[in-house]
Amino acid sequence: MRYARISDPSGSVRRGPYEDGTVETAGRSFDVDDPDVDLLAPCEPSKIVCVGRNYAKHAEEMGNDVPDRPLLFLKTPNTIAPPNSTVPLPAGKERIDHEAELCVVVGEQARNVDAEDAWDVVEGITCMNDVSNRDDQNEEQNWVRGKSFDSSAPLGPVVADVEHVPDDASVKLRVNGEEKQHGSRDQFIFDVPTLIEEITTYLTLEEGDVIATGTPDGVGPLEDGDRVEVEVEGVGVLEHDVVAE
Amino acid sequence: MRYARISDPSGSVRRGPYEDGTVETAGRSFDVDDPDVDLLAPCEPSKIVCVGRNYAKHAEEMGNDVPDRPLLFLKTPNTIAPPNSTVPLPAGKERIDHEAELCVVVGEQARNVDAEDAWDVVEGITCMNDVSNRDDQNEEQNWVRGKSFDSSAPLGPVVADVEHVPDDASVKLRVNGEEKQHGSRDQFIFDVPTLIEEITTYLTLEEGDVIATGTPDGVGPLEDGDRVEVEVEGVGVLEHDVVAE
Repeated sequence: MRYARISDPSGSVRRGPYEDGTVETAGRSFDVDDPDVDLLAPCEPSKIVCVGRNYAKHAEEMGNDVPDRPLLFLKTPNTIAPPNSTVPLPAGKERIDHEAELCVVVGEQARNVDAEDAWDVVEGITCMNDVSNRDDQNEEQNWVRGKSFDSSAPLGPVVADVEHVPDDASVKLRVNGEEKQHGSRDQFIFDVPTLIEEITTYLTLEEGDVIATGTPDGVGPLEDGDRVEVEVEGVGVLEHDVVAE
Repeated sequence: MRYARISDPSGSVRRGPYEDGTVETAGRSFDVDDPDVDLLAPCEPSKIVCVGRNYAKHAEEMGNDVPDRPLLFLKTPNTIAPPNSTVPLPAGKERIDHEAELCVVVGEQARNVDAEDAWDVVEGITCMNDVSNRDDQNEEQNWVRGKSFDSSAPLGPVVADVEHVPDDASVKLRVNGEEKQHGSRDQFIFDVPTLIEEITTYLTLEEGDVIATGTPDGVGPLEDGDRVEVEVEGVGVLEHDVVAE
């Protein structure tokens, strides 16, 4: 099953099974193409825990070594943007990049989870663009201006059950229809169970929290007017626009 | 006025004016020393935006230069611990330090706030201990294990109106009654309006969010069984215990 969150024509927020462009919930059916229905981010994270350099080729393109334990960073709730949103690029910056990511959505409160039990605390998988302000990221110890600026985490369009997402699921990103990134889940340096065990050694994960599992090589700049598609095999396509602020 | 949040004897969460150990709310009066009343963290941040090296003497003791713009880092909501809590020190670490901080509590959603208008978006001032896991902090680019482990942000005991907190308010920390840190607000490298303007250039602050304004010199290790007091002049004293995990 895949699940979507919507704002219905009356403005009420609903969440339910999604199939063929329709969300079924509370005995009603909503067409996501109805102009009075808005797709929302499919979950409400209290935090997004992100993993840096989790594909060897991306570490290489950024001039970095492959890490010996997961490199973690954070995106705050103000970063979350719904599918089909228009992401404003912060003013006065030279380089704002796209980063396609396969994301794990947490299904229950979790702490000290062993890797072998990790899938038990996962609700499903979604897509994110980890929009990254390189100007500031390159000058900061902690990437707050670089990674947590408003709307820098378009998320969605749905949460797919894990069974829909193959072990070698492709992770792709297109800008204006042209493929820029294309990796796959079997290229992860640290797999999902390892990430969950490591993160929950230190932090409690809450229902709806997101783990962004890193980006494949091919990151590059976004410009005013770009149309971005992030596609994770088995989940679907997250689309958003870009506008200069 | 000062405000506290409590869990009342029935378990309901209430918030109201605090004076002389009593919270008045909804026509009732609750004694915070009543064993059936629990003080809670006085606000519910979606994020804590922290400022590094905001006192010159602390930058010096950590072997760092004084920064030319605010150094920002984050603490996630899982870090928040109430007054009088017992903070578990992560297992197997050599050095977990205390850091006394004067904190600003945000009063309304805010973005692109000019320094001259910054106090308009502040609800008040509270105290925090930014408990810091140096073992991991020293090895991480982004201080996630180092700063966002569970319960590493005891917060409170109240939110005091800004008028109660003098421009040169003292910021002190005691361990087992012995003074370890003693700075004052007039030693800040970046004042509160400058911090709010800088942060809201990039991030939307939400009602209840917290800006932790940095720690004075004198940081040092915490041990199993320690009793910590963080005192900000005009706010009060935040107390908590420490236990080895």
